[in-house]
Amino acid sequence: MNKVKSLNRKDLLGLKDLSVDEIKLILRTARSMKEVAARPIPKVPTLLGKHIITFFFEASTRTRTSFNMAAKILSANITNVAVSSSSVVKGENLIDTIKNLEVMGVDAIIMRHSMAGAPHLAAKNSKVVVINAGDGFNEHPTQGLLDIFTMKEKKGSVRGKKVLIVGDISHSRVARSNIWGLTKLGAKVVVVGPPTMIPEGIEKMGARVSYDFDKEIVDADFINMLRIQMERQGKGLFPSIEEYAQLYGLNAERMKKAKPDVVVMHPGPINRGVEITSEIADGLNNVILEQVTNGVAVRAALLFLLLGGKNSD
Amino acid sequence: MNKVKSLNRKDLLGLKDLSVDEIKLILRTARSMKEVAARPIPKVPTLLGKHIITFFFEASTRTRTSFNMAAKILSANITNVAVSSSSVVKGENLIDTIKNLEVMGVDAIIMRHSMAGAPHLAAKNSKVVVINAGDGFNEHPTQGLLDIFTMKEKKGSVRGKKVLIVGDISHSRVARSNIWGLTKLGAKVVVVGPPTMIPEGIEKMGARVSYDFDKEIVDADFINMLRIQMERQGKGLFPSIEEYAQLYGLNAERMKKAKPDVVVMHPGPINRGVEITSEIADGLNNVILEQVTNGVAVRAALLFLLLGGKNSD
Amino acid sequence: MNKVKSLNRKDLLGLKDLSVDEIKLILRTARSMKEVAARPIPKVPTLLGKHIITFFFEASTRTRTSFNMAAKILSANITNVAVSSSSVVKGENLIDTIKNLEVMGVDAIIMRHSMAGAPHLAAKNSKVVVINAGDGFNEHPTQGLLDIFTMKEKKGSVRGKKVLIVGDISHSRVARSNIWGLTKLGAKVVVVGPPTMIPEGIEKMGARVSYDFDKEIVDADFINMLRIQMERQGKGLFPSIEEYAQLYGLNAERMKKAKPDVVVMHPGPINRGVEITSEIADGLNNVILEQVTNGVAVRAALLFLLLGGKNSD
Repeated sequence: MNKVKSLNRKDLLGLKDLSVDEIKLILRTARSMKEVAARPIPKVPTLLGKHIITFFFEASTRTRTSFNMAAKILSANITNVAVSSSSVVKGENLIDTIKNLEVMGVDAIIMRHSMAGAPHLAAKNSKVVVINAGDGFNEHPTQGLLDIFTMKEKKGSVRGKKVLIVGDISHSRVARSNIWGLTKLGAKVVVVGPPTMIPEGIEKMGARVSYDFDKEIVDADFINMLRIQMERQGKGLFPSIEEYAQLYGLNAERMKKAKPDVVVMHPGPINRGVEITSEIADGLNNVILEQVTNGVAVRAALLFLLLGGKNSD
Repeated sequence: MNKVKSLNRKDLLGLKDLSVDEIKLILRTARSMKEVAARPIPKVPTLLGKHIITFFFEASTRTRTSFNMAAKILSANITNVAVSSSSVVKGENLIDTIKNLEVMGVDAIIMRHSMAGAPHLAAKNSKVVVINAGDGFNEHPTQGLLDIFTMKEKKGSVRGKKVLIVGDISHSRVARSNIWGLTKLGAKVVVVGPPTMIPEGIEKMGARVSYDFDKEIVDADFINMLRIQMERQGKGLFPSIEEYAQLYGLNAERMKKAKPDVVVMHPGPINRGVEITSEIADGLNNVILEQVTNGVAVRAALLFLLLGGKNSD
Repeated sequence: MNKVKSLNRKDLLGLKDLSVDEIKLILRTARSMKEVAARPIPKVPTLLGKHIITFFFEASTRTRTSFNMAAKILSANITNVAVSSSSVVKGENLIDTIKNLEVMGVDAIIMRHSMAGAPHLAAKNSKVVVINAGDGFNEHPTQGLLDIFTMKEKKGSVRGKKVLIVGDISHSRVARSNIWGLTKLGAKVVVVGPPTMIPEGIEKMGARVSYDFDKEIVDADFINMLRIQMERQGKGLFPSIEEYAQLYGLNAERMKKAKPDVVVMHPGPINRGVEITSEIADGLNNVILEQVTNGVAVRAALLFLLLGGKNSD
């Protein structure tokens, strides 16, 4: 079998576009990067002289820091551009800004934007590498990849495994990236939440819909609990935090129904006591912090592959 | 002929102060830096261990990122200080802040400030190298230098060439830096705009004033279109965006009157459809993105020369 | 005599916790770091590959830049996370955020927070090194250490020396760190200010209380002038800026009563004409800028010692 050794694409915009071989290449490369990151001196000269920009139109500590760690492990230069201090306040259009960064010699732009499709627009109109770090309600591909990486680390493979994604599916780019990736790799994905939070037509992505967490949890291999956006409360999506937590939160009582080796995941940040209780978030089954560790490895793998590296495995 | 090999000055505050020899030295050095920036690994150890601060009191993506790229090409450390997170909110006076940075061991401060003369104040009261990245309506010397660098790249020399600077001359630090530099180098500078946007006495800087774009464009070698500050609209400077665009905007119709090899420039960010149409901004005559590329080279040259380097050409 | 060669602690939270031997080790190490910082190329590879985060919930140019300089001298990676662009706006709790940074591979977090005890909370719940860069009205240990470093540099030792700390003691984390450290090292500390600004029970920390600056100044060896928070004016702490300056400000008139070799200090930023006149702030006795220089050395020493270094003196 001939393994794919390099990504034949300029950008990483979403898991929707990736082939199974590409996903596997990224995950394989991430394994090497995780080893590098764990060294006493976690620094290799691979991307020396490469310039990376984080261009975030939404607040972020975790994702932005994770990309910074990844870039620095590979010895790349990284400059963080926050929106409030950017020329976007002067009304420059996005494509012009991206093209400006391109001709300055920037090698990659890591973009987060509240508008779905913004990174795609940037990628299409520029020669610079664009990595989507979250676009509106569309995709958050590095989160999807680190979730799948973590699942494979725990269970060897996701093929045939039952994965529950629980919460506000409609407003979750994490859910969408997970569904695209997991179904490609042969997992059985079930999205669980109140009907108001499940978008119509989600089955077309390959996921099954359920409104009954208690029923689905019984034979689940993975449970990925989504963060509830507290600011949506009172907008008719769910009656109250308490009721949501009771029906769709993960707590000790509900966990008793699950298989003993079920793996509990959460993309963070956690609302303790809402979608997940502290007992479970800090318990034996959870891999929430391992997901965060793996995020650095996955992001380093992407920077490596998109900035010209080849996997020599 | 003995070429000047080093800048005999601590700071770069404006083109007003620079001698012709100094301007030529900077542009010559920028040519070397452009070559370095284009290498597969654009990184030389020249400024290893030097500490540079960007200290911006106004929003900026482009200029700040450009300086970051320049610093990193030369292996300098660079720390970005944004105003909102600075001790300036505590009322510390500017000179004290600068002296504090100086005694911390900072080697150069790149300052943008809404007040004309702020970098001069900082420079005069401190031993640290100060680079003006734009001060009020006074100067934006690195923009002026990169504009001239680009002109020379296109036409060999600016001596005797006719350069139009079109727009709101009164509120343009870009215009002022261009006029100072270009007239020193022997270019014929004509400032063009509505009478409300041309400051009295501008002729003393060596520029000719014209209100008739259509007449001046005919034999122009360079047209530098300034950005219109949309927020000034309705303040009596011009009746409407549409009327401004018709009289002083650069569009396909007007371009027909120009020489075929006229070079169209813009300091960015562009207001498409206002001072310049997309057809022209993306057309064959424009060098707008080349200006941006050259900005990194010019800034690297300045960091190199001001932080102790000599040009060995 | 066996000198302590390494810090037996994970974090630096305050001078309250440090032993005399630890304080001396830090100051001794800072002397070496000051020498490194003064080299033509102030860069050693000691912390290559280490990742440091500044995590500031309050505005800061000086302290944050000082830590950046210190980190870069030691070749560490440093990423600045400002609060407004952080996931804290999403309501993530502090401990979860810190644990996330820890598992990403961050080696040290430098934290400033308006809440006293926040860095302690972070430190206790995480394996990552936490350095307190100021927590509410509790401590600002690196300021305390750099103050003591500067005092020892000027007078050899602080043992038996009389140190006045003048101003709003109640709201000063600088005062508290100084008192803890100086009394441990055998200095005689007198806190001076209006009764409304001296907290009850401060004597238990080992400081004497006085309301009479003119009397205490006569035999003082050091005068540490605290910054007056102008925003507290009109809240009953002092009648007016003018009256405060007259009674508790340091001016030429009052300085005549002091010993000729008294050392004047200020943690900055200075309110010129309020707690100190420009004449004194820029005068012969002051070491205010030396304090700033020493801040980089002390912070480098702490990063070195807390990230695994040993002092080989």
